[in-house]
Amino acid sequence: MSVDEFEFIRHLAKFASQSPQSLNLSDDGAILAGDGQPWVLVKDMVQAGVHALADDDDGDIIAKAIRVNLSDLAAMGANPKFIMLGLCLGANSQLSSLEHLAGVIRAECTQFGVGLIGGDTVRGQGPTTVSVTAIGQLSGNPILRSGAVAGDDLWVTGSIGDGALGLRMLQQAEPAPQFARLNKDDRQALAKRYRLPTPRIALGEPLSGIASAMIDVSDGLAADAAHMARASKVSITIDIEQVPVSQAFSHWVDAGVALATKWTVLAGGDDYELLFSAPKLAAQDIHRIARLTQCPITRIGTVNAGSGVVLHFDGQAVSLPVHGFTHF
Amino acid sequence: MSVDEFEFIRHLAKFASQSPQSLNLSDDGAILAGDGQPWVLVKDMVQAGVHALADDDDGDIIAKAIRVNLSDLAAMGANPKFIMLGLCLGANSQLSSLEHLAGVIRAECTQFGVGLIGGDTVRGQGPTTVSVTAIGQLSGNPILRSGAVAGDDLWVTGSIGDGALGLRMLQQAEPAPQFARLNKDDRQALAKRYRLPTPRIALGEPLSGIASAMIDVSDGLAADAAHMARASKVSITIDIEQVPVSQAFSHWVDAGVALATKWTVLAGGDDYELLFSAPKLAAQDIHRIARLTQCPITRIGTVNAGSGVVLHFDGQAVSLPVHGFTHF
Repeated sequence: MSVDEFEFIRHLAKFASQSPQSLNLSDDGAILAGDGQPWVLVKDMVQAGVHALADDDDGDIIAKAIRVNLSDLAAMGANPKFIMLGLCLGANSQLSSLEHLAGVIRAECTQFGVGLIGGDTVRGQGPTTVSVTAIGQLSGNPILRSGAVAGDDLWVTGSIGDGALGLRMLQQAEPAPQFARLNKDDRQALAKRYRLPTPRIALGEPLSGIASAMIDVSDGLAADAAHMARASKVSITIDIEQVPVSQAFSHWVDAGVALATKWTVLAGGDDYELLFSAPKLAAQDIHRIARLTQCPITRIGTVNAGSGVVLHFDGQAVSLPVHGFTHF
Repeated sequence: MSVDEFEFIRHLAKFASQSPQSLNLSDDGAILAGDGQPWVLVKDMVQAGVHALADDDDGDIIAKAIRVNLSDLAAMGANPKFIMLGLCLGANSQLSSLEHLAGVIRAECTQFGVGLIGGDTVRGQGPTTVSVTAIGQLSGNPILRSGAVAGDDLWVTGSIGDGALGLRMLQQAEPAPQFARLNKDDRQALAKRYRLPTPRIALGEPLSGIASAMIDVSDGLAADAAHMARASKVSITIDIEQVPVSQAFSHWVDAGVALATKWTVLAGGDDYELLFSAPKLAAQDIHRIARLTQCPITRIGTVNAGSGVVLHFDGQAVSLPVHGFTHF
């Protein structure tokens, strides 16, 4: 986010805070009273050429929009239940593909166990733009960004860097030498991580009551850690050597990549993993959840008094591009 | 809507019907259990160049997006409570206007008594596109499109035609003779009806329990009556001479407009008035609500056995462009 966008949200947050349901716009979602369990609502847009490649299939763009919203629900500890889908087809979209797109929507909803309950469809004049409102249910309290306390550990699910690396690979007309040495499986895995990230919906609810703060990694590991540090009024230290990467990412690094490039990609965003803090005593519970959900969860740092994000490498504090992906 | 869009929604409606909350996608909104009163959620997009003029101010486009969604809530008999706002700024939007836009959002929310509880902001690559999710509360049952029964009367709030006439006026580089004869107030009124329609939010809840079916007039009077007729499995007759028009509209007609042109504009859409059916016995209640809310409500037709929309003029059935505005 740029200064302008922060200013914009700050202008609005003051007004929004009149409604406690808004959580002061400081988290990914809003909370409405439910019949028993509260509802969590999140709403994010995806546009071709901004959050997806300009010539990506409309079906992939719709699927990505659904997935990034489900990721936001998971980050608040909510169980996804429903989506509403606003589809603004691009000027160049083929109307003949509407049946294909309906199939994609059905398949995504089925895969992630959510019902489709509304939305609208428009034939637009720009790039394909998809706005999803996703609705989840909380069994406990929501996990906010603001709950991290000094002494907590910092954890992350899955692996980091593939989304940004996939984008970098897909944007090149001619593959750079490092990409040329990746095998076909690596390449497919990286492209898929960028185009069709898998939201960690199985982890949101189990981590409720364990994680003290949580956010999904969309802007970038360092940028999202900074969001958490700011909301929690703490400092967060990330040990870069502990950040988990995939096999494909390792193959890319092994082909001879400068450390600065590796770090830039690690901070690149589009991971849709969950980054959370938890008391040291919760480590056993976290390992148990990792086993049960068959999703690796790795301790990558600590929460301390202070402010900002500190990156550690080889025992030293280092400087990194921490701004991640910005939409401005 | 075109055949393609109907097909698309038909494909999705079958799937969506697995969730009763979706109302089978046949109404403007979805219903979630609340803490006492149920929530109604609606979600519509507005794009510059499609639902607003290409060079309209981003603030007007945001305001229109909020208003058309509040109109959808009113049409279901719900009281607007909250909005979430997804703002995809156009490639040519000035970031310097973000403070102005935040002011518009605050002013709109304040005017219509809704809280801002979430959303996102993106710097896009096409025209400015705004997706609003509006959330209302029901005190009774929702008013659906499917409740009209033969023998009911058909009513409409306010006046019809100004939105489409305003668009027609704004689209002309040189005003046609009929427009040239409108005075300044008329012109401003027509432009405002297109750019900043006023949702009839004070009428939704009072009409709950009185209206048997309701829809807001966005696609066009005849097209939206046809949606209601289809959902209710009835025929709807509209007496064109009874359709209420504004002073500005009358001035335009008086300047010498062909009857066919007048009817085309009357069916043009963008009215955001409420069209509803009600038992004949409800007439007194309806007149009372009109007085209390200071909003004219006019009887313009009847509901009969059969299907489709029949337009009556001078005692004769006539043919009209009934398709209204289509986004495809």
